[in-house]
Amino acid sequence: MSGLPDRVDIREVSLRDGLQIEAPIPLPAKLELLEAVVATGFREIEATAFVSPSKVPALADAAELAAELDRFRAERDVEFSALVAGPGGAKRAIAAGMGSIEYVVSAADGHSQANVGRSTAESTDLIADITRIAHEGGATIEVIIATAWDCPFDGPTNPRRVVDIAAAATELGADRLAIADTIGTTTPKRVADLVAAVRPVSGDIPLGAHFHNTRGAGLASAYAAVTAGITRLDASVGGLGGCPFAPGASGNIATEDLVYLLRDSGIEVDVDLQAAIAAADVARRVVGHDLPSALLRAGDRILH
Amino acid sequence: MSGLPDRVDIREVSLRDGLQIEAPIPLPAKLELLEAVVATGFREIEATAFVSPSKVPALADAAELAAELDRFRAERDVEFSALVAGPGGAKRAIAAGMGSIEYVVSAADGHSQANVGRSTAESTDLIADITRIAHEGGATIEVIIATAWDCPFDGPTNPRRVVDIAAAATELGADRLAIADTIGTTTPKRVADLVAAVRPVSGDIPLGAHFHNTRGAGLASAYAAVTAGITRLDASVGGLGGCPFAPGASGNIATEDLVYLLRDSGIEVDVDLQAAIAAADVARRVVGHDLPSALLRAGDRILH
Repeated sequence: MSGLPDRVDIREVSLRDGLQIEAPIPLPAKLELLEAVVATGFREIEATAFVSPSKVPALADAAELAAELDRFRAERDVEFSALVAGPGGAKRAIAAGMGSIEYVVSAADGHSQANVGRSTAESTDLIADITRIAHEGGATIEVIIATAWDCPFDGPTNPRRVVDIAAAATELGADRLAIADTIGTTTPKRVADLVAAVRPVSGDIPLGAHFHNTRGAGLASAYAAVTAGITRLDASVGGLGGCPFAPGASGNIATEDLVYLLRDSGIEVDVDLQAAIAAADVARRVVGHDLPSALLRAGDRILH
Repeated sequence: MSGLPDRVDIREVSLRDGLQIEAPIPLPAKLELLEAVVATGFREIEATAFVSPSKVPALADAAELAAELDRFRAERDVEFSALVAGPGGAKRAIAAGMGSIEYVVSAADGHSQANVGRSTAESTDLIADITRIAHEGGATIEVIIATAWDCPFDGPTNPRRVVDIAAAATELGADRLAIADTIGTTTPKRVADLVAAVRPVSGDIPLGAHFHNTRGAGLASAYAAVTAGITRLDASVGGLGGCPFAPGASGNIATEDLVYLLRDSGIEVDVDLQAAIAAADVARRVVGHDLPSALLRAGDRILH
C-alpha cells in the first residue's frame, strides 16, 4: 500500500456526464452550477458535449454554454473540455472555442453500436481525423476508452481490446488517455489489472480513469487506480449523473467523497472540500432531486 | 496490490447493528429476516445484543430471539453471536444460550462515556471479567474496539489507544479482536495504517474489521483492510443500519456490495450473492423503508 502519489488531479464532469441524462435545464441554471464548480478550485472542468441534440437534449446548448466560458477563464486558471463522438462534433467544439476535446471510443462493439452506430474498429479509425481536427484548431485531444471493463450488451470486455485502443491512440497522437467504467461495474482488483495492462502502451501520455458508483465500488476503484499510479480522476459534485435503470443511485463518483478520501490519505488535490459540498448542494437544487453524495449528507469529520 | 487472501469471512450484522436504531419490529419479522440471512450461507451471524432495553428498545427481545436460534443451528453450521456492553449483559447472553459474545470497548473516552457511562480505561478493565464469564459459560469472546479511528465527540482517536486495548484484550484472553469505524469516517490509508499498528500486538488472535459507509468510503476501507491482511469483515444486508443524523444513507457496508467486490477480486466467500440480494429485499420490507445497498438497485453485472 506504499507508493501513493503526492497529488491527484480531479476533473469535474458534472456539467457533462452529470447532466446528460437529466431533463434539460436552462442555461442560467447551468451557469450557476458552473460558477459553484469553478469556485471549488478545479483546474479541469468538462463543460459540455458536442453530440446529437436529439440523442442528448440536455446538452443541446453546447455552443451557447461554450460562449460563456471566457469569463470563467478570466477569473481562474481552469481548462474547460468538451466531449465529442465524431469529427463533426470535434469541428463544432473547435468552432465554439473549446481548447480541449475528449473523444470516446467504446471498447465493446455492443455499446459502440448502440452509442454511435459504429464498431469499435470504426471508432478507433476516426482517432486520426479527430486528433488532426483538434490539433489544427489548437486544442488538445483526450481519447476516453468507454466500457473498459464491462459492456451492458456484450458483458466483460477483453482487456486486449482496451490495450489495442490505447496503443492506437498513442500512435495516432492523442495527448491524453482515460479508461472509463461506463456502467459502474468494476472493482479494485480489476482496476489494478487493467491499469497494469494499459500503462506499457500508453507510454508518456497521461492516463486517467473515470468511475461510476453504480455497484458501490466507485471510490474503492478510484483508490485502487491511484494505488496503481493513476493521478487523474473524473468526478462529479453530488455524484450527479444518474442512469435510466437506477435513478439517483448510480452517478459518477461524488467529487466531495473523493476529495475527502484523498485528503485523508495524505494526497494533495486542488479542490476545497467545503466548496465542493456547497457545489453539490447547488447541483441538487439545479436538478431538483436528491443526489447520492455521502458528504452532502454527513459532512466532514472532526479533524482535531 | 498483491497478497490478497484466498478467502474472507463475512459476519452478517443486520439483525443487531442493522436493526438497533430502527423502530422496534416484531419478533416474527426478525425471524423472517434471519431466515433469509441464514439462507445466504453466512457462517457467522450477529443475532442481537444484550444491552439496556430502554437504551436500545429495538433489541429488547434479545432473550426471545436467542430462544429461536436452535432451529437455525439445526439447519446449518452457523455461529450466532450477541453483543454486550458489560458483565450483566454477558451473563444474560450466556443464560440465553449464546455461544459467542462480543464486548465493545470504545477507544475514545467521549464515545465510551456517552455509550456506557464509563471511561475507556474502565471498560478495558472489564475485559477480564467478561472473558471469564464467557469462557465459564462455554462461549467465545470477541473484543470490538469502537471509535477506532474517530469519535463523534473527541475527534480523531490516537492509534496508541487502540493498540493498548488490543494488547490488553490479547493479554486477558479474548478469542478474537475487531476494529470498528463506528461513525463511518475512515478511509483506506488510515485503515492500512491502523491494521499495521494493531497486528503486532494482536498476535495469533483473529483480527476483524467493521465499517460503515457514512462517507462513501466503506467498501474502499474494507478492501484496504483485506489488502492489509484482514480476513474477517462485518457487513449488513441492504446496508441496513442507519444513523440518526443521516437516515438511510449511512448504514453498515452492504453485504451484497461487499460480496460483489470480493468475488470480482478473486476472493472466496461463503455467501451467495443472489441470496444476499434477496435477503436485502427482505430487510427493506421488514423495516419499511429504502436501503442504501447498490446491488439491491443495480443487480449483478453480466458475467460472461
